[in-house]
Amino acid sequence: MNLTLDQLNTAAPEEALQMLAGIYEHSPWIAEKALAQRPFKSLAALKHAMAQTVREAEPAQQLALIQAHPELAGKLAEQGQLTAESSHEQHTAGLKACSPEELAALQRLNAEYHAKFGWPFILAVRGPRGTGLTRQQIIATFARRLEGHADFERAECLRNIHRIAELRLNDRFGVEPTLGNQVWDCAELLAQHSDVEDALTVTYLTPAHIACQKQLAYWMRDCGFDEVEIDAVGNVVGVYHGTQEEAPRLLTGSHFDTVRNGGKYDGRLGIFVPMVCVRELHRQHKRLPFDIELIAFAEEEGQRYKATFLGSGAVIGHFDPSWLDQRDADGIAMRDAMATAGLDPKRISWMQRHPSRYLGFVEVHIEQGPVLNEIDLPLGVVTSINGSVRMLGEMVGTASHAGTTPMDRRRDAAAAVAELLLYVEKRAAQVPHLVGTVGMLEVPSGSINVVPGRCKFSLDIRATTDEVRDAMVHDVLAEIRAITQRRGLHCRLEETLRAPAAPSAPDWHRRWERAVESLGLPVHRMPSGAGHDAMKLHEVMPQAMLFLRGGNSGISHNPLETITSDDAQLCVEAFQTLLNQLAEERP
Amino acid sequence: MNLTLDQLNTAAPEEALQMLAGIYEHSPWIAEKALAQRPFKSLAALKHAMAQTVREAEPAQQLALIQAHPELAGKLAEQGQLTAESSHEQHTAGLKACSPEELAALQRLNAEYHAKFGWPFILAVRGPRGTGLTRQQIIATFARRLEGHADFERAECLRNIHRIAELRLNDRFGVEPTLGNQVWDCAELLAQHSDVEDALTVTYLTPAHIACQKQLAYWMRDCGFDEVEIDAVGNVVGVYHGTQEEAPRLLTGSHFDTVRNGGKYDGRLGIFVPMVCVRELHRQHKRLPFDIELIAFAEEEGQRYKATFLGSGAVIGHFDPSWLDQRDADGIAMRDAMATAGLDPKRISWMQRHPSRYLGFVEVHIEQGPVLNEIDLPLGVVTSINGSVRMLGEMVGTASHAGTTPMDRRRDAAAAVAELLLYVEKRAAQVPHLVGTVGMLEVPSGSINVVPGRCKFSLDIRATTDEVRDAMVHDVLAEIRAITQRRGLHCRLEETLRAPAAPSAPDWHRRWERAVESLGLPVHRMPSGAGHDAMKLHEVMPQAMLFLRGGNSGISHNPLETITSDDAQLCVEAFQTLLNQLAEERP
Repeated sequence: MNLTLDQLNTAAPEEALQMLAGIYEHSPWIAEKALAQRPFKSLAALKHAMAQTVREAEPAQQLALIQAHPELAGKLAEQGQLTAESSHEQHTAGLKACSPEELAALQRLNAEYHAKFGWPFILAVRGPRGTGLTRQQIIATFARRLEGHADFERAECLRNIHRIAELRLNDRFGVEPTLGNQVWDCAELLAQHSDVEDALTVTYLTPAHIACQKQLAYWMRDCGFDEVEIDAVGNVVGVYHGTQEEAPRLLTGSHFDTVRNGGKYDGRLGIFVPMVCVRELHRQHKRLPFDIELIAFAEEEGQRYKATFLGSGAVIGHFDPSWLDQRDADGIAMRDAMATAGLDPKRISWMQRHPSRYLGFVEVHIEQGPVLNEIDLPLGVVTSINGSVRMLGEMVGTASHAGTTPMDRRRDAAAAVAELLLYVEKRAAQVPHLVGTVGMLEVPSGSINVVPGRCKFSLDIRATTDEVRDAMVHDVLAEIRAITQRRGLHCRLEETLRAPAAPSAPDWHRRWERAVESLGLPVHRMPSGAGHDAMKLHEVMPQAMLFLRGGNSGISHNPLETITSDDAQLCVEAFQTLLNQLAEERP
Repeated sequence: MNLTLDQLNTAAPEEALQMLAGIYEHSPWIAEKALAQRPFKSLAALKHAMAQTVREAEPAQQLALIQAHPELAGKLAEQGQLTAESSHEQHTAGLKACSPEELAALQRLNAEYHAKFGWPFILAVRGPRGTGLTRQQIIATFARRLEGHADFERAECLRNIHRIAELRLNDRFGVEPTLGNQVWDCAELLAQHSDVEDALTVTYLTPAHIACQKQLAYWMRDCGFDEVEIDAVGNVVGVYHGTQEEAPRLLTGSHFDTVRNGGKYDGRLGIFVPMVCVRELHRQHKRLPFDIELIAFAEEEGQRYKATFLGSGAVIGHFDPSWLDQRDADGIAMRDAMATAGLDPKRISWMQRHPSRYLGFVEVHIEQGPVLNEIDLPLGVVTSINGSVRMLGEMVGTASHAGTTPMDRRRDAAAAVAELLLYVEKRAAQVPHLVGTVGMLEVPSGSINVVPGRCKFSLDIRATTDEVRDAMVHDVLAEIRAITQRRGLHCRLEETLRAPAAPSAPDWHRRWERAVESLGLPVHRMPSGAGHDAMKLHEVMPQAMLFLRGGNSGISHNPLETITSDDAQLCVEAFQTLLNQLAEERP
């Protein structure tokens, strides 16, 4: 018999505690403390309350919780002394069917890990719907995490414990993230198309890209979109009709191209989530008072050609015809790539949407950062897409002999850049949501015994408002002047990008907030440090974004990019709530 | 009629001032102040006193001195308004025969230079014996210096003014640096042999290297060396017999191989100077009470094979036979290169000298650093060849999105290395003659929008004593631990070299000091930051080195490496004095 939230909310304290027994391994104090927050509005709220309890506990208590877990395929498993839950999970992951070599590898990793960190390695080995990590994946993750820093690894163990607890709660409450699983499956299937064999790379108009287009168009039709077409730049556009033919539409979507060796969710999540919502509406024969127009943008990452935001740019009339003459690394002009794909560049200018025909634009996206992951929240409401400035620089000093040039007679270009880098770090840290990065750093042809005469570097500065960003740029330039003057060097600097900030439209932002609240979750407001298609749409219509937590510390542009289907479920539900709100606003 | 030093020393003040009129352009105050130091022991002492007067002047006075000079091929020259001296110098450099294009280039450079620095470009255009820079060289130097920093360029103008004054004084006193010119000529001639066409590169046993061997052997015989041979590793060894057949010999020499795209004096100066001394002894039919053994070492730089100090190493019995199997970039084994050159590796072990047969080893070398250049002194006495430690490191953090990762959640590997670099700089600056360098620095595959997850770097730490060096290494390692702990990173570090310091033998050091004093010059004691052949000989016998100032801020391992024949003359004279001292010590 499955438990219900109502049962939990109304049970006597002892009884309620029993209902949550074993959710966190050997640690009933977590359930006890979390239950003080009853009644829970949703299962998500319960999960969050329990995770929050662990977050707020003393470090020693957190460590005891980690220590309470068994090793993977360890001695306890051999001796049959695991808890029922652990035993089931390790069995599902096939850990009882390890080959002798795999067992030896796991035992060696267990020993090394324990020697380094002093606690057992913890990994949520189950995936959605009973699927899970393979033994090979488990061993690879183990080896990777063994390389990490203790602080990070302790937090990563706690996050895996919360994920284990989530799966155990799903079992106990008989809950399956059905819609989240649909998102998960779409991501898995679409990721099978790639330009290269053993990594996910889908760049503009390659065969893999066109296969993705076709797949997306097929899915949109299958979900019940009334109109589906591939437009002149290769975007896949689906329209689900509303009841009022002439009413302004809701526009949504994101991109399906990827960076080289990228992740499965960057961009694509923002296509799958509204797709699943429309599938649900269609399944229930529901029509809203407005059309939903979903665009799977063909290009955002700027990987094959130097132009970025090709897809969303074309929709707002910002397609520069000179881009057609750009050539990729193989010398293929964009114009020819488009012809091969059956696209007609002459039709691009006709794609431009008239803003008055739209309510606004919403985009769901994976966070691509660590914040939600670290605060144990699945969703974040975006306040603004940060404005950014990028620069490439070269510090020029004098190369000289590392042995014969006294310290006070050097013009060390690398030391000057080091000073600048630490200034950038310190200056950015003074203002919330301001970030500054020196991502490229190189002494060209540096030698171990030569004082660097040149040092190349990059600067990337982003803030929620252009004013905050420009104030930092101003200070950084002043600091460069001060450093070069003091050290007797000079610095060449070229601004390569200046993108204005795109604050979310307040009413749209509030709709996302209400959607998150309706799930029983606290609202976390955050800026988007990365650029998104919404940034382009921002130029012509109101927009607001919703972020979904990424696993593995929110790593993105990387094969380690991941989400859970439970989080995806919450994301779909938030989108559904947003649609309902809009419908209620338009009688 | 040439002036004599005696005339200058005994003249009435007004008269003496007149004798030095026009040596420094429109600036009689320099002569006036310097003359207060009469009597001068040598012309070098007079030159030094005048340069010192400028050094000690107020910055405004120095600037006025620079401003007093005409532009090269400028308006004054067109209008015939140069001083007699300037007119003669610009004429000698062929500046009056400029093509219209060259004139236009010079005028454009004059304008840009003046706009940037606010004073005229000053370059000593005359070389030894009336030769000088070509118009093309002048234009190239002009363009290069235009790129420099104002502080450096002001100092460089003053140094050129001193050089102009030196040439004018030589004219007035009818002095020609005859022996210095011989050194200069040897350097020019030997530099015609190179492995490559448009740069000076002479690596072990290439055809250019063998041509150098032959040239050196020819010169040694021509200078009057009694025995000249090419030994088993390719060193060229000359012995000039003394009067006492069984007395211990004086050993001297340096290397004739070069780095790729190197300079004409690095190593070679230490061959030419004793060669010229022996030529003079032989010309005067003089024999000393001891033999002089000069070795032109075949290999010091480690360019073709990974072994360094092959030449001096073999002499002290440190030739490792496993080196014979090393292969160069073309796959040619050292053993085969030696066979082709007619060398017999089996004879190498027989080359080992018995220390009891030698008085000691002295080596003359270009400074390869900026110190003597900056203090306007031609010679420096080496106190110690620094001990060094080299390390290669890699800082490992976590790559993450530059836009979405808040400053307080980063594990930026480049920022950690930047901190380390500035620590190394600060720590080394606290102790005289201690140097620390991060010469290699790179974020591998860095992207403008990615927080660096890895950063590679090198460390090079050198000090006059091993204790001082090791104390810094200790502190740097502690700092790395502190940085990695605080920032949550880890650092891989590999020590690639550890060479002990080689302090000069006190009695040999004093002989060099007395030699410098005898020239009327102040003694400047300094460590050698670079390694030299003397470091190897140090392991078996007393040694001491003398440094000669390099031009162009002492740049070395570079085609800009240069000296003047006046400085080379002083170097030969110092070596002669050292020989005389040794002779006097051994009746």
